[in-house]
Amino acid sequence: MDEMFETVVENIKTLLRDKNWAKLKIILEDMNEQDIAELFMELEERELTLIYRLLPKELAAEVFVNMEPEYQEALIRAFSDSELREVLDELYVDDAVDMIEEMPATLVKRILNHTDPEMRKSINEILRYPEDSAGSIMTTEYVDLKRNMTVSDAFTRIRRTGSDKETIYTCYVTDSKRKLKGVVTAKELLLSDENNLIRDIMETNLISVTTMEDKEVVADLFQKYDFLALPVVDTESRLVGIITVDDAIDVLQEETTEDIEKMAAITPTDKPYLKMGVTETWKKRFPWLLLLMVSATFTGKIIQHFQNALQTYVILTSFIPMLMDTGGNCGGQASVTIIRGLSLGDIEFGDIFKVIWKEFRVAILCGITLAVANFFKMMIVDRVGIVVAAIVCGTLVMTIIIAKFIGCTLPILAKALHLDPAVMASPFITTIVDALSLLVYFNIAKLTLNI
Amino acid sequence: MDEMFETVVENIKTLLRDKNWAKLKIILEDMNEQDIAELFMELEERELTLIYRLLPKELAAEVFVNMEPEYQEALIRAFSDSELREVLDELYVDDAVDMIEEMPATLVKRILNHTDPEMRKSINEILRYPEDSAGSIMTTEYVDLKRNMTVSDAFTRIRRTGSDKETIYTCYVTDSKRKLKGVVTAKELLLSDENNLIRDIMETNLISVTTMEDKEVVADLFQKYDFLALPVVDTESRLVGIITVDDAIDVLQEETTEDIEKMAAITPTDKPYLKMGVTETWKKRFPWLLLLMVSATFTGKIIQHFQNALQTYVILTSFIPMLMDTGGNCGGQASVTIIRGLSLGDIEFGDIFKVIWKEFRVAILCGITLAVANFFKMMIVDRVGIVVAAIVCGTLVMTIIIAKFIGCTLPILAKALHLDPAVMASPFITTIVDALSLLVYFNIAKLTLNI
Repeated sequence: MDEMFETVVENIKTLLRDKNWAKLKIILEDMNEQDIAELFMELEERELTLIYRLLPKELAAEVFVNMEPEYQEALIRAFSDSELREVLDELYVDDAVDMIEEMPATLVKRILNHTDPEMRKSINEILRYPEDSAGSIMTTEYVDLKRNMTVSDAFTRIRRTGSDKETIYTCYVTDSKRKLKGVVTAKELLLSDENNLIRDIMETNLISVTTMEDKEVVADLFQKYDFLALPVVDTESRLVGIITVDDAIDVLQEETTEDIEKMAAITPTDKPYLKMGVTETWKKRFPWLLLLMVSATFTGKIIQHFQNALQTYVILTSFIPMLMDTGGNCGGQASVTIIRGLSLGDIEFGDIFKVIWKEFRVAILCGITLAVANFFKMMIVDRVGIVVAAIVCGTLVMTIIIAKFIGCTLPILAKALHLDPAVMASPFITTIVDALSLLVYFNIAKLTLNI
Repeated sequence: MDEMFETVVENIKTLLRDKNWAKLKIILEDMNEQDIAELFMELEERELTLIYRLLPKELAAEVFVNMEPEYQEALIRAFSDSELREVLDELYVDDAVDMIEEMPATLVKRILNHTDPEMRKSINEILRYPEDSAGSIMTTEYVDLKRNMTVSDAFTRIRRTGSDKETIYTCYVTDSKRKLKGVVTAKELLLSDENNLIRDIMETNLISVTTMEDKEVVADLFQKYDFLALPVVDTESRLVGIITVDDAIDVLQEETTEDIEKMAAITPTDKPYLKMGVTETWKKRFPWLLLLMVSATFTGKIIQHFQNALQTYVILTSFIPMLMDTGGNCGGQASVTIIRGLSLGDIEFGDIFKVIWKEFRVAILCGITLAVANFFKMMIVDRVGIVVAAIVCGTLVMTIIIAKFIGCTLPILAKALHLDPAVMASPFITTIVDALSLLVYFNIAKLTLNI
């Protein structure tokens, strides 16, 4: 597939060099807009602006939407005013907003100057909403119907206004004050008698969000209710826009990436890895490393405290990495499972005791299995005395119990305190478990060996 | 919200106890099917079977689909044959398959005996596809049109057959041999002249998948192309079913959960945490812990090898946890970023040198920042000699470079070898980086201190 793509790119480049416009047109017209966008992003800027002009108007706008901001910017700079206006006319409001958010201020001005006044108003309105709000991802282009319309009136309205709307499959019924009164799907309209009134077939038991709702909540609603679109209302229940399922999927994926980054002790970002500069990447990573490094001081202090014991029994030192790693891994397993469960809504605060009791039993099972395996390994491979083996294995069981306990409780407590549970993943858990497991280790050793 | 839900549950329970059927009916009819399902799952089995019978037929089936398998099972056991048949009649094929996959064999037999022959055939067909294939998540209920139909014929067909179809918004055009020839959306139909022929308005540049395609690939296609539905064909390009966007979202979420579990060294499962037994949870976790524990033997051996050096300079021991943790965290940051980038398609094998070069520069920056901070900390807080501080900080820089290098290359190499990159996350990286960083540490110490 990837090789095929390379071949197509080479082919296109040759045709461009030969100025074979006719053949290029035929090839492009047979392709999907997303694929054309990917193809175009492989070209030089000069080639891009040339070939872009070969696309029919509507396809051109669709391709434009699917390109990365830097290529959109290059195109806009190359556009004449009338070309710019043509592309802008074809864009949906939410796509226009996405684009504008990535452009330098001078270009934004030029873009807004060439959009028609109504669209400009919508764009400005959406740009005002905070980054993570429902308002910022909505579009203001939806089909609105009135309660006293018949099904046949509704079809007339859809046919007249539908071509500019992002979806016509969910239609919104509003009153004279623009308050949302109901929704009706295109399926219901198609399967209804033409003379039925909208008020009689519309669904009035509505689920909507306000403009300031967190977009993560919006994405969860889509997942739970299998919506294709969701209405967005202002504080006075007036309909101001809708969010469509494709945007909700993007939010779901972004939020998951953020969670995963936080779990790995990275400040989240919405830029793809390869687009991020080195210093930017460093800034997202080193504060966490520094914090965790400094926290490891406690662990160091504990070792220093038991320095004499270690000098007498140096062999004890060699099991520190194994104990620390196993503790970290056990804590990581528990915390990551709980964090994901919380974010999918499978686990809630009320489940905390159920979770602890379960993790306790899992810890006992894991502890015994690993301790038995480790005991034989230590006796046969490491050839240590039975006392040392017993100390290490006893610590192992305790470490696993502590790790699972901390791993499962911290994320739930974080959630209860309205902090992000994802931060309570392996790195933090490991740092805490390290210190505790060493304390257990050295104290058991001290008591047993009478140091 | 949660408290409100509790109140509703209590309210419903009281009404049930008072046998106030009329009021119950009114409350339920105003609720969403998903919410009713959640409410019902809070009730006792006896209450559930009572209240379920109050729902109107169509709503009853929708509520049924949204319940967890164990509650569906309880209901099916309580149903009379005619009640069972009524629910089954209302189910979409893919929902029926999902349900059957979770039922015990005896119930499956009873269910299949009460589905109509055509649906039974479809169910059996879908059940035959492997668990992760496109075939296993498709539905066989779609609207099919013919090329020589007019738009008005198409509407007649949609009105006649549409009520049983999972979506009517994408219609599929097939020839007499059931080969897929084109698709046309309801939007295009609605915005077209009634007398246009389907062959003239249909899209012929099609994206479809075969029944055996990995469902992860299917989910990625939905995300890339913003589809509402995707056709599934057999090896001879005959249309056998479609996959809708709601099912694709579920796959996306499942696949992400699996990735996250693998990154935390857990064998993935599709069961929610609270539904999994203790031994089952243990089985998913301990093999990885055991493997990682045994791998830590190398680290132990390295420490044993440098036993004499450690006995002379016990202070060196106290920085082992900090070095190991920082190495693990750095490696984890790099690997998790790369794993997510690979799964989102942002990073490919061809980017490997770009990635290594970038991580190298980030590692230098992180290394210097952390080393400087650590140097001062060691001099001021730990009050160690300048030589020991230099040894530890030198090791720190080397560890970070090694960790970032291993963290970013292993996932890409795994992908190139068609292994799952997600396995190459923090736990594995940590184990490898531990051993390497200790080797560096002790060798620098030996050379510098002449032990």
